[in-house]
Amino acid sequence: MLIDMPLAELRSYRPEPSEPADFDDFWQRTLADARAQAAPAQFAPYASGLRTVDVFDVTFTGYAGQPVRAWLLLPRHTEGPLPCVVEFIGYQGGRGFPHEYLTWSAAGYANLVMDNRGQGSGGHTHAVTPDPAPAGAPHTPGYLTRGIESPQTSYYRRLFTDAVRAVDTARAHPRIDPERIAVYGGSQGGGIALAAAALGGPVAAALLDVPFLCHFRRAAEITDAGPYSELVTFVRTQRHREQEAFATLDYFDGVNLAARATAPALFSVALMDAVCPPSTVFAAYNRWGGPHKDIRVWKFNGHEQGGAYQTDEQIRFLEKALG
Amino acid sequence: MLIDMPLAELRSYRPEPSEPADFDDFWQRTLADARAQAAPAQFAPYASGLRTVDVFDVTFTGYAGQPVRAWLLLPRHTEGPLPCVVEFIGYQGGRGFPHEYLTWSAAGYANLVMDNRGQGSGGHTHAVTPDPAPAGAPHTPGYLTRGIESPQTSYYRRLFTDAVRAVDTARAHPRIDPERIAVYGGSQGGGIALAAAALGGPVAAALLDVPFLCHFRRAAEITDAGPYSELVTFVRTQRHREQEAFATLDYFDGVNLAARATAPALFSVALMDAVCPPSTVFAAYNRWGGPHKDIRVWKFNGHEQGGAYQTDEQIRFLEKALG
Amino acid sequence: MLIDMPLAELRSYRPEPSEPADFDDFWQRTLADARAQAAPAQFAPYASGLRTVDVFDVTFTGYAGQPVRAWLLLPRHTEGPLPCVVEFIGYQGGRGFPHEYLTWSAAGYANLVMDNRGQGSGGHTHAVTPDPAPAGAPHTPGYLTRGIESPQTSYYRRLFTDAVRAVDTARAHPRIDPERIAVYGGSQGGGIALAAAALGGPVAAALLDVPFLCHFRRAAEITDAGPYSELVTFVRTQRHREQEAFATLDYFDGVNLAARATAPALFSVALMDAVCPPSTVFAAYNRWGGPHKDIRVWKFNGHEQGGAYQTDEQIRFLEKALG
Amino acid sequence: MLIDMPLAELRSYRPEPSEPADFDDFWQRTLADARAQAAPAQFAPYASGLRTVDVFDVTFTGYAGQPVRAWLLLPRHTEGPLPCVVEFIGYQGGRGFPHEYLTWSAAGYANLVMDNRGQGSGGHTHAVTPDPAPAGAPHTPGYLTRGIESPQTSYYRRLFTDAVRAVDTARAHPRIDPERIAVYGGSQGGGIALAAAALGGPVAAALLDVPFLCHFRRAAEITDAGPYSELVTFVRTQRHREQEAFATLDYFDGVNLAARATAPALFSVALMDAVCPPSTVFAAYNRWGGPHKDIRVWKFNGHEQGGAYQTDEQIRFLEKALG
Amino acid sequence: MLIDMPLAELRSYRPEPSEPADFDDFWQRTLADARAQAAPAQFAPYASGLRTVDVFDVTFTGYAGQPVRAWLLLPRHTEGPLPCVVEFIGYQGGRGFPHEYLTWSAAGYANLVMDNRGQGSGGHTHAVTPDPAPAGAPHTPGYLTRGIESPQTSYYRRLFTDAVRAVDTARAHPRIDPERIAVYGGSQGGGIALAAAALGGPVAAALLDVPFLCHFRRAAEITDAGPYSELVTFVRTQRHREQEAFATLDYFDGVNLAARATAPALFSVALMDAVCPPSTVFAAYNRWGGPHKDIRVWKFNGHEQGGAYQTDEQIRFLEKALG
Amino acid sequence: MLIDMPLAELRSYRPEPSEPADFDDFWQRTLADARAQAAPAQFAPYASGLRTVDVFDVTFTGYAGQPVRAWLLLPRHTEGPLPCVVEFIGYQGGRGFPHEYLTWSAAGYANLVMDNRGQGSGGHTHAVTPDPAPAGAPHTPGYLTRGIESPQTSYYRRLFTDAVRAVDTARAHPRIDPERIAVYGGSQGGGIALAAAALGGPVAAALLDVPFLCHFRRAAEITDAGPYSELVTFVRTQRHREQEAFATLDYFDGVNLAARATAPALFSVALMDAVCPPSTVFAAYNRWGGPHKDIRVWKFNGHEQGGAYQTDEQIRFLEKALG
Repeated sequence: MLIDMPLAELRSYRPEPSEPADFDDFWQRTLADARAQAAPAQFAPYASGLRTVDVFDVTFTGYAGQPVRAWLLLPRHTEGPLPCVVEFIGYQGGRGFPHEYLTWSAAGYANLVMDNRGQGSGGHTHAVTPDPAPAGAPHTPGYLTRGIESPQTSYYRRLFTDAVRAVDTARAHPRIDPERIAVYGGSQGGGIALAAAALGGPVAAALLDVPFLCHFRRAAEITDAGPYSELVTFVRTQRHREQEAFATLDYFDGVNLAARATAPALFSVALMDAVCPPSTVFAAYNRWGGPHKDIRVWKFNGHEQGGAYQTDEQIRFLEKALG
Repeated sequence: MLIDMPLAELRSYRPEPSEPADFDDFWQRTLADARAQAAPAQFAPYASGLRTVDVFDVTFTGYAGQPVRAWLLLPRHTEGPLPCVVEFIGYQGGRGFPHEYLTWSAAGYANLVMDNRGQGSGGHTHAVTPDPAPAGAPHTPGYLTRGIESPQTSYYRRLFTDAVRAVDTARAHPRIDPERIAVYGGSQGGGIALAAAALGGPVAAALLDVPFLCHFRRAAEITDAGPYSELVTFVRTQRHREQEAFATLDYFDGVNLAARATAPALFSVALMDAVCPPSTVFAAYNRWGGPHKDIRVWKFNGHEQGGAYQTDEQIRFLEKALG
Repeated sequence: MLIDMPLAELRSYRPEPSEPADFDDFWQRTLADARAQAAPAQFAPYASGLRTVDVFDVTFTGYAGQPVRAWLLLPRHTEGPLPCVVEFIGYQGGRGFPHEYLTWSAAGYANLVMDNRGQGSGGHTHAVTPDPAPAGAPHTPGYLTRGIESPQTSYYRRLFTDAVRAVDTARAHPRIDPERIAVYGGSQGGGIALAAAALGGPVAAALLDVPFLCHFRRAAEITDAGPYSELVTFVRTQRHREQEAFATLDYFDGVNLAARATAPALFSVALMDAVCPPSTVFAAYNRWGGPHKDIRVWKFNGHEQGGAYQTDEQIRFLEKALG
Repeated sequence: MLIDMPLAELRSYRPEPSEPADFDDFWQRTLADARAQAAPAQFAPYASGLRTVDVFDVTFTGYAGQPVRAWLLLPRHTEGPLPCVVEFIGYQGGRGFPHEYLTWSAAGYANLVMDNRGQGSGGHTHAVTPDPAPAGAPHTPGYLTRGIESPQTSYYRRLFTDAVRAVDTARAHPRIDPERIAVYGGSQGGGIALAAAALGGPVAAALLDVPFLCHFRRAAEITDAGPYSELVTFVRTQRHREQEAFATLDYFDGVNLAARATAPALFSVALMDAVCPPSTVFAAYNRWGGPHKDIRVWKFNGHEQGGAYQTDEQIRFLEKALG
Repeated sequence: MLIDMPLAELRSYRPEPSEPADFDDFWQRTLADARAQAAPAQFAPYASGLRTVDVFDVTFTGYAGQPVRAWLLLPRHTEGPLPCVVEFIGYQGGRGFPHEYLTWSAAGYANLVMDNRGQGSGGHTHAVTPDPAPAGAPHTPGYLTRGIESPQTSYYRRLFTDAVRAVDTARAHPRIDPERIAVYGGSQGGGIALAAAALGGPVAAALLDVPFLCHFRRAAEITDAGPYSELVTFVRTQRHREQEAFATLDYFDGVNLAARATAPALFSVALMDAVCPPSTVFAAYNRWGGPHKDIRVWKFNGHEQGGAYQTDEQIRFLEKALG
Repeated sequence: MLIDMPLAELRSYRPEPSEPADFDDFWQRTLADARAQAAPAQFAPYASGLRTVDVFDVTFTGYAGQPVRAWLLLPRHTEGPLPCVVEFIGYQGGRGFPHEYLTWSAAGYANLVMDNRGQGSGGHTHAVTPDPAPAGAPHTPGYLTRGIESPQTSYYRRLFTDAVRAVDTARAHPRIDPERIAVYGGSQGGGIALAAAALGGPVAAALLDVPFLCHFRRAAEITDAGPYSELVTFVRTQRHREQEAFATLDYFDGVNLAARATAPALFSVALMDAVCPPSTVFAAYNRWGGPHKDIRVWKFNGHEQGGAYQTDEQIRFLEKALG
């Protein structure tokens, strides 16, 4: 069933943002630190068994100079700089095997797939990148409240910084055209891509499929579905830390980040999706700062989201945006 | 939790098969009829937006000369006859979009992906091929008991014949090397691939990931999970048709089909898989007629089955089998 | 909990109907065709073991002259023409055994119980009538989207035509008084009875217990419960067929049919019924064309619906309506 | 799935009974007391609206002379003494409306349907008979542990005595042939009928559809399904009363009662029924004392049990047993 | 998710009460009767193994002079009259062991813990007090509808009278200061404490954690969670008794009782609590008659309710209220 | 239902242990390191509002000298050294408020309640102690697989070392008699207490209520319940790390630890407990090294486990063991 406001209300839903005064400072310093500690990325050829794609096992330096793994897939039989899709992965997922990420190289793009540090053990694709930061203060199992005791320690500070650095890594690669980079992801991957588009310097396009990590304060009130439920469980248990938790998340809220984006964007939203409820997605979409934006509304879909139909539209969208 | 016999028992589990006397006649006539009514396949170029793959929207004639849709993906920048993977799809799925099937072309093979007639409306990939046969006698929603009133009318008679014809179609394609054809699928797709390997003339390899449609009589007794549960619901409601139902299914049972296969095969089985319980898979595997066979046992997995790990092994296996 | 609008709103809920321009033509042609292909019904005595009821195993011609099974129960020790209740059965049910339908003969009426073609294998009463129409384009398991590719192919075109022909069959029987025929059913049976009352020529009464098959467009938005969920699953998967699906269902929507009814009617609705949500029932009730109508509102009931309480009221209602 | 021993083991399953030494004394005294306090039953004509059945609202004296309600249905147009089916109702049910019990009068029998004291408020048919005994010591919601503090106070002492008195009431009615009385019920109704057959003097037949209330000690160990789960919850909470609870139930265990029965019996059992697990039914069946007995094994059914198929067989069985 | 009105609306929610005309008479007579039949309470020393608390196994006379059990815990090493917390227990619970109730004696108070007659067999703490009243008319398993046929027979008439008598018992104990008695409980315990504060003569404080038994008419409409669901199941089954049921509950509704209270009170409410929905709690809180009242709103909590956080506040609140 | 072997088999179940060769070295070095980095514990008086207990907010140094929080509760009005219960907390719990731990001080013992580092955010009691170790390699949400990449990094290495240091802390406190220290806990708390008894030097008694963390290899095969399910999810996703995972857990397996214990012990086990299955508990119990041991078998209980009944027995047991 439809689980949120009627579509007409969603289209004009613009809640008052809860934006910390030092939001931009926080991110400027965080990213500057990461870049200051950066080392050149390493690209080790990987024997994937695939014959139309050159695969590289990538190690780049992410948050605080920490090593982060990725796959780089380059379509064979191409020459010169390629446009590139930097891809981010959903909750509890990891980079898995390169053969799990074949869309964008098949479409003719370089494809850099960033691993999710510390994730990838939840029954889906697996990750290999550790999260060297302290596990820290008590938090609810999962990633949403890891390090929630402050913006400095939040897991998403590290993950979003990794994402910006993944874009940096793509930009610096000799086979990639730095002017033609798109960011892409669905659910958590969409939230990360949104952050990368907002924080990582200008990109040429953003493909954001039902982005997670938007409008936390509302999400906690209107859905029982995970992963937002982790946040509810946290403040339900650590009641004296409620203000602290929401104040921390303001630094990572897609609604605040979207306003800083400048790229053309194709969003999607599913009106029966309790995992990424429609109003949380529209709150970010309606505030998106880029000049051209569009959103595909899947009225009867849940968190299976845009799926392959959305991918089909994304392929067409990128053809125009990246050439 | 482990849901079936201990592994040691599974490895030697050889139940008495319930094989109809006219099993081979039935199939010989069925396939001869289909081939007698066959028309040449049509391959319409399809603008998928993918730049490293040539995609064709295929219509071939399947059961009784009825049109069946498929995708053919050919890796670009190749010449001469290619080895080919003929791929079959899981329960309630359909051929969807070509970008949902990129593994085998990326691995350098031609890839023919057969649509499931009448399926593809269950929340996963969608199908476009109708099932022109009469809906027929009352049956439980789903496909397992459609037409179960006789082997002649069983849905799986049509689907398996389509599969054999898909292999025929691949064999006849000018860009495909008829000596280097593999069949592949998981779950229902595995069951179809098993049937195609057994009935469709010699193939070079079979990749059967947790095959469904094996050992119906036991499956109905040991699992509550769908789709086998459709069979239980059927005989629970139409009690006077119990013998009829199981007698019909004997013609489509992977245990009977496996004995007729001759190709090298790589199976998988997951010991916590209630959808395709281990003993039903081993019953087929232990009776497989091919000279070289292997089975990957995923001890702690459920119906997520072999997944990307299995794909990785399949890529290596095909490299050796097809070159 | 209450699952829809407050009762006061329900009582005045009159959504704009989405009625195809050729709605009446469509049905006129469909019924004319069926009647043109009709053959006389056959009534074979059936040894039910019941001693106060004469039971006949009926075969009449329904949609396109296809044979449909039914039971006819006549109370023994009666003479002359009897009033008759033509009874329709709920989703996934079939005519089962005659001893499952004893209310109306015990109440002194002839009772014609129509089988549901192709249904009756879902754990409830069983059916024996096949559906000879092609299974057709991919659809979601169940009956709601079978043939949904066009009004011509929709399963409900066949089932509703069967229902009209069942009323014809009752009218033509020598022991039945054609002026005193009522239609009756609950849930899907209520939806079929509604259609029979609207399309089948004047009947003397309609007993519609929580009718299903009303106001599809709203049902798909407000409930997750089956069978309406089949429709959601269908458009969720076959997204490009959304308009087609709803356009087809407009021809079978109880809201459109109700306006054409002329019989006195007793409805029921249950305010906690997610299967047949209250607003979908009231949308039909409020548009019912008959001169006398009443609706029994069961405030705290779910899809157990009117149940035996409603039956008690129906018996009293028929006493007045049919004598 | 099959939930208990293989069928071959079930057929020979004869656990050591746990029979109290004073079992027969207990019941002899209990029934003698009830009969000593008995008053003549009252039969008030009831305007059911049914025209082929004469319905009477019955009040007879049950346990300790307490009034118990029932329906008596007599097929019209009959003369002389009729054979009679005394019918007992499932867990949480009550006598509801007379039109909910039409099978046996339609089959030509008198039908006395006993209300369940204090039950009938669980979503199914409703009861009207109070249970005037003290609610008593703490017990788990439901009826299984009501009064479990001793055989004297157990709810089932009262209910089984009511059942014996219902048979007495039928025997004494002028329109009923006392030599041709059958007892009938399913689930709890089957357990009550079993008790009535064992304790209520010779009856001509017993129809016991998946009887509940058999082999409590095993049931508590092998199923999580209700109502046996009430017993588990009870001893789980009131741990110091475990011995007391099982010792009380021994007086009401169908395994002990069955040995005392002398009537021909038709049982049923469903091999996927977690509510009345197969071994508990066979434990009673295998100990049944009557000369002729048969059991219909529904291999793939759950607690929908014998259902209408079993009714069909029961009708045939009674034809022979009662004439 | 939030399950009821927004907080601002809750704070001003004052539904029209449905208060019987003889409400005060009913209670005056009921309590006068109980006190007329009262006998002195008995306090038997109990060897709990606890060394800092003196424990007594209490038997006092409750409703109609019936014996009710309780624990009295007195902190050792104290002299003179102590303030006392009279404690009431949640649904399906009982007094269990004294070591399950250690908070208030540790805080320095006498603590009288009243057993719940007839409850205590649902998987939580066990009870030992029987309910000698007749089980009575059919009702839904549980306590909410036991005796619902009239205010005179309602289970809650007995339980609330027990509670008033528990306060009487505390007042009369030589070690307890009758001017410094608080009532306390959560969920059902909160509802009982509310009743005791309203009916039992002036108390010095009331600690009401998410009180149950408030605003039955709304609760039945807005939640599917138990125990209110028992009420829905009852009126769903015994439909002709709907008016009777709600009319009976009016005598026990916390909304009516709250208006009669005079003590300072600390409530709590949890905005995600489907068991005791927020509007039912606020309906009572907003009508509370005492001079000082406060309510702790736990925004993200469910029926785990105030929990240990609330206890911490209650300890502070009592320090001020009782000294 | 019973979920494991019959009781007789459980009593003699002694699986071959999988004990690493360097098991004792590993623990000796780990504990020596911790003690080398230890600083004196701090005991800050805490204003709990409780008047019969002196509460201290404790900070002691645990694993690697890291600060760990605890509560110390001392019954007032006592003199001289007290026996002490060192208490450990269940999965996802934390030390919460001191008023949540009142049993043992009420029983006359000092009670040191150790916080669970990093836990306490799962809906139960909350924790305040951070886990400063790196979050590390990808793991399944929860604690069971945190750091599972090696025994050195396993979360349980840190938690068990904290536990040993908690016992050290108790021993060193001036008000505690170092010869009369017991360890106590249920579920995870039981597993920690078992480790503390095995590794922490001689204690006077161990109270182990359904201990978790025993016989991981079997647990992963026989239960779907959490937290063992985390381990299954981990090896299901990170399949190449299966050997690594189980090899790591061998260092923390209660079966290996139990053999090293020397204290008298009272265990409990619940035969319907899927969370801590009976055979995993008996595997540890049967290998317990202490001279006196007993186990209370709760036949019909699940993971509510021994509960208050067990506490009652523990109080009696400690009276004898500690005086």
